[in-house]
Amino acid sequence: MQNQTRIIIENVAPQLDSGAYPIKRIVGQKVNVTADVFSDGHDVLECCVKFKHESEKKWQEIRMIPSVNDEWNADFKVQKQGLYSYFIEGWIDYALNWQHGTERKIQDNQYVKSELLEGAEYVKAVQEFANEKENEYLNTIVAYFTAESDYDKAIAEVTSYKLKQIFKKYPIRVLENKSIELQVYVDRKKALFSTWYEFFPRSASQEKGKHGTFKDCERLLPRVAAMGFDTLYFPPIHPIGEVNRKGKNNATNANPGDVGSPWGIGSHHGGHKATHPELGTIDDFKALVKKAKNLGIEVAMDYALQAAPDHPYVSDFPQWFKWRPDGTVQYAENPPKKYQDIQPIYFESGDWKNLWAELLDVALFWIEECDIKVYRVDNPHTKPFYFWGWLISEIKKKHPDVLFLAEAFTRPKIMNELAKQGFSQSYTYFTWRDSKKELTQYVTELTQTEQKEFYRPNFWPNTPDINPFSLQSGNESVHLQKYFLAATLSSSVGIYGPVFEYMVSTPMAPGKEEYLDSEKYEYFKWDWEIQNKLTTIITKVNAIRNEQASLQQTNNIVFCETNNDQVIAYYKYDDDKQNETLMVVSLDAFNTNQAMVRLPIEKLGNQPIQVTDLITGNTYSWDKEWNFIVLSPELPFHLFKIKR
Amino acid sequence: MQNQTRIIIENVAPQLDSGAYPIKRIVGQKVNVTADVFSDGHDVLECCVKFKHESEKKWQEIRMIPSVNDEWNADFKVQKQGLYSYFIEGWIDYALNWQHGTERKIQDNQYVKSELLEGAEYVKAVQEFANEKENEYLNTIVAYFTAESDYDKAIAEVTSYKLKQIFKKYPIRVLENKSIELQVYVDRKKALFSTWYEFFPRSASQEKGKHGTFKDCERLLPRVAAMGFDTLYFPPIHPIGEVNRKGKNNATNANPGDVGSPWGIGSHHGGHKATHPELGTIDDFKALVKKAKNLGIEVAMDYALQAAPDHPYVSDFPQWFKWRPDGTVQYAENPPKKYQDIQPIYFESGDWKNLWAELLDVALFWIEECDIKVYRVDNPHTKPFYFWGWLISEIKKKHPDVLFLAEAFTRPKIMNELAKQGFSQSYTYFTWRDSKKELTQYVTELTQTEQKEFYRPNFWPNTPDINPFSLQSGNESVHLQKYFLAATLSSSVGIYGPVFEYMVSTPMAPGKEEYLDSEKYEYFKWDWEIQNKLTTIITKVNAIRNEQASLQQTNNIVFCETNNDQVIAYYKYDDDKQNETLMVVSLDAFNTNQAMVRLPIEKLGNQPIQVTDLITGNTYSWDKEWNFIVLSPELPFHLFKIKR
Repeated sequence: MQNQTRIIIENVAPQLDSGAYPIKRIVGQKVNVTADVFSDGHDVLECCVKFKHESEKKWQEIRMIPSVNDEWNADFKVQKQGLYSYFIEGWIDYALNWQHGTERKIQDNQYVKSELLEGAEYVKAVQEFANEKENEYLNTIVAYFTAESDYDKAIAEVTSYKLKQIFKKYPIRVLENKSIELQVYVDRKKALFSTWYEFFPRSASQEKGKHGTFKDCERLLPRVAAMGFDTLYFPPIHPIGEVNRKGKNNATNANPGDVGSPWGIGSHHGGHKATHPELGTIDDFKALVKKAKNLGIEVAMDYALQAAPDHPYVSDFPQWFKWRPDGTVQYAENPPKKYQDIQPIYFESGDWKNLWAELLDVALFWIEECDIKVYRVDNPHTKPFYFWGWLISEIKKKHPDVLFLAEAFTRPKIMNELAKQGFSQSYTYFTWRDSKKELTQYVTELTQTEQKEFYRPNFWPNTPDINPFSLQSGNESVHLQKYFLAATLSSSVGIYGPVFEYMVSTPMAPGKEEYLDSEKYEYFKWDWEIQNKLTTIITKVNAIRNEQASLQQTNNIVFCETNNDQVIAYYKYDDDKQNETLMVVSLDAFNTNQAMVRLPIEKLGNQPIQVTDLITGNTYSWDKEWNFIVLSPELPFHLFKIKR
Repeated sequence: MQNQTRIIIENVAPQLDSGAYPIKRIVGQKVNVTADVFSDGHDVLECCVKFKHESEKKWQEIRMIPSVNDEWNADFKVQKQGLYSYFIEGWIDYALNWQHGTERKIQDNQYVKSELLEGAEYVKAVQEFANEKENEYLNTIVAYFTAESDYDKAIAEVTSYKLKQIFKKYPIRVLENKSIELQVYVDRKKALFSTWYEFFPRSASQEKGKHGTFKDCERLLPRVAAMGFDTLYFPPIHPIGEVNRKGKNNATNANPGDVGSPWGIGSHHGGHKATHPELGTIDDFKALVKKAKNLGIEVAMDYALQAAPDHPYVSDFPQWFKWRPDGTVQYAENPPKKYQDIQPIYFESGDWKNLWAELLDVALFWIEECDIKVYRVDNPHTKPFYFWGWLISEIKKKHPDVLFLAEAFTRPKIMNELAKQGFSQSYTYFTWRDSKKELTQYVTELTQTEQKEFYRPNFWPNTPDINPFSLQSGNESVHLQKYFLAATLSSSVGIYGPVFEYMVSTPMAPGKEEYLDSEKYEYFKWDWEIQNKLTTIITKVNAIRNEQASLQQTNNIVFCETNNDQVIAYYKYDDDKQNETLMVVSLDAFNTNQAMVRLPIEKLGNQPIQVTDLITGNTYSWDKEWNFIVLSPELPFHLFKIKR
């Protein structure tokens, strides 16, 4: 390729797979762009980051600054939701190069008359763009440079800061080059900072043996809001299939009165655009969403793409399902496991474009009809990746506020790929990370590798599908510890509510992570009034999260050394370091532990600080690098706010 | 983007800057391709590497094998010089997926009649491609699968290895996806394995005070060949400028009789397509190149793109030089340094396309006229990178044998970029790496990072421009050590001959790395007959390099632990591990050192071995991981051949 540019721009970061996917930010965050920028020879070069929001025509630009080894960097702030593009432009700056070279010759006492004449040409080139006041100054410069007599005055001006600033302000870009164009998708704040509560609406009734309704749910909203949750997630609210319905404890055959799994969607009452009659009407649901909104709570719906055998799709669009040679339909299976109440959507269908359009329509229906802004997506890893990339971007074009949480518990690269395709948040392996080493490694991977650019973790200590071994003891301290870790390590956190608060944890069988008498197949009457230590502490932690900016993001974290393997400590800060917190957590649910904790003086400096425990209100003055703490199972953590 | 494929292919390696540059290999080497390949769901997928030489139309393919964490890999061998392309293709393999799923159901004792019918369809699809014998077998299978009675026979065949192999051989590729296309440039062996000798032809005379000629050089060829060198590099052989010619020791003004620097190219005798009259004619040079070739030596020319003030280009093509406002031409300078005998080419010229064409023509002239196959390129980092990319690829299209050595001693990213643009070999920082830590770090960087894919180092202990501090002592042991390190760490090595052999090392001034009385500005009469310990050992080491394949590449190296900081040890192997060597070198030129050396049992296994020192002929039996050695300044290394 014949190309006269002398600039090379390589290794631009952040970027994902050569720009195939945008990175992610929320409104007000920075993008720190770095790149290797260099040219042949010794000439002075300059470079800048150009960026613009998709709604804008004009590129904004910010000049890059060199660090070491031909690396340059610059920050830009994203102020609007939606897609920004950015790229790097570099050029040889002849004027600055002339100033730099001539300065060295003057220092070497060379006679630079010829250089002054050359300089006059660069000054004249800039005059075209300079303002009136600047031009007055530049006229004098040109006069000095070209006159026979003003040599001393001229060489004093060669190196002047004022001239340099004018050259910097109006660069004449020659032999320039550009990097590839990259993108960043900007979400509203909730994409990064959210506090989720999950319950089954059918268990919301006050009366034992009675199916809960949307109306019953309304009654529970004030409690959810008071506890500091801002996102209320319901399992699917659509009609539940009656054919092949599952019984209690996942029995293949339902008994009369069994309510089935809400994930077996669709019956003669309707499909993905209908509500389960026993919960109420769409209008009831709409009223609930509205009331929740007034309390600062967004209702998150479940987007579960599958059909019960009696879902209207099955008869109306048989081409969207896989039929076997013997004429039966293929139900979901993962041999030898069978899910007879669920038929997977057949994405290989020849009619896939109509299928995709309908599935998009389902998502848009609830957004536009009921003001739904958050979807928790069921098993996205069993549907094609490019479907999600398309669906999410189609929805975001019209409704950039809508957020998607990926419920994929599977292999790491698959979970990452879903996030790259556009999921706003993702479930994680947190549920199974118990030891200090496991937690440190996992959070380091999420926050210090490429994942930090696209994977927004949401930490759940439990879900209706996962009754983790660590919680099966029913021990209160471990519940306190798990919620605290989730809520302070990650800025997004969620619990499967009543089951967690009341520490229900009997497994289906020893060694199994499924619940005995799972709420997935029946409904319960919970005591929605009780307050206990867990609810008190959850409420307190959530309130603190709302006040401390350092807990409203996940990536700015530094793990601190401690001399006890049962004690984990980590420091968090917001982007401007206006807010700093230090968490110290005992992972021992049965014994009191003491430990020395090392302050991250690389970040804090080696200076005395005050730390105030925001849970207890106690304040300590720490003037050493290593500090002593004691934690008991009764309250196994400190949440310190740092005052320098 | 709406796309029905279910396959994701990411993180393909090796690749440079998203495929902007080809990686490098020599004929017969392997390319090990790795990638993350996965799909949604649980279906069985397959993938392959497709590759072809630029002269071929048909893609060859080789199936990839999964390792861990959704990573797959495959090797292919490059057999021809020139450019190969490669990419990865992945697909859902329904047939293998059916076999896998049905096998699990059979194990679970499920009745699989419907699955057999499905399987029959997959078998029939394959029959279209299968050969006669295979089809006989497949007919039987179809009969079993579709018959009412042969259920037991049928389910025995479902899981058969034979059926699996046929499915593997004739994959029906659905929902497939492809990676980006990448390239590998394949050179002849010398690109990787070469042994260089440099001398100034004008110093080749036998008579003191007489300018050497090409004819004189012919006389020296047998000695160069006998020492085991295969590449003879001459500084520029073109007419030397007479205007502003430099005197001895780089004096600004030459005295009468001063011969000037060969890098001040061009005079009324001609420019880059002429020879310096005192050296002889083009025909003399042609004869020299031919005689060298008969002795197994290739003559490497210097490609130095600059002009003396009296170069014909200056008057014929003034637009190819930069003129200052006062009408003088811009000579080369790096303020405050001045090179008045050299005018840089002005690549920013508006006439750059004609300039590029002429420079290409110069290179082609010597290739086509004199059979030149190797260029050492002077200061490529002061000319535009894209010029080199274009020039080298234009030449390689017609003459793939031609090799280019980049003489750039500058910042790391610039040296890397030149290699990416196509230079076959590059000078390195080896000249300044003295301690065990420095050598280990540097060679590790060259061989264990991305650099191994494109940067082929050539290790030079000295050059006419660099009289390194380490050699300024004139100590024999350090000269032995430096040549040995260069020749065994790197498969390409070179010395600036007589000066090295006779240990001439007086610097211009203390603390300077320039030579006093540099041969760059005058000629000498060397005693070309003398043999000393250095020439003996160099000859021996070069002979060993020619025999041991493990020394004919640079990347397969493992540094071995030793318990002495003055003793460095490293193990090398060829790609097939048919040849293995172990080098142990003392870096102490003044004292005897002893050390324990650890064998790389990760590579060798924990078994007794025999090591034979190929320099001394001594053999040792080692049956332990750690072994004792003693090295004295008289012979400060072992070069062991390993026999398992």
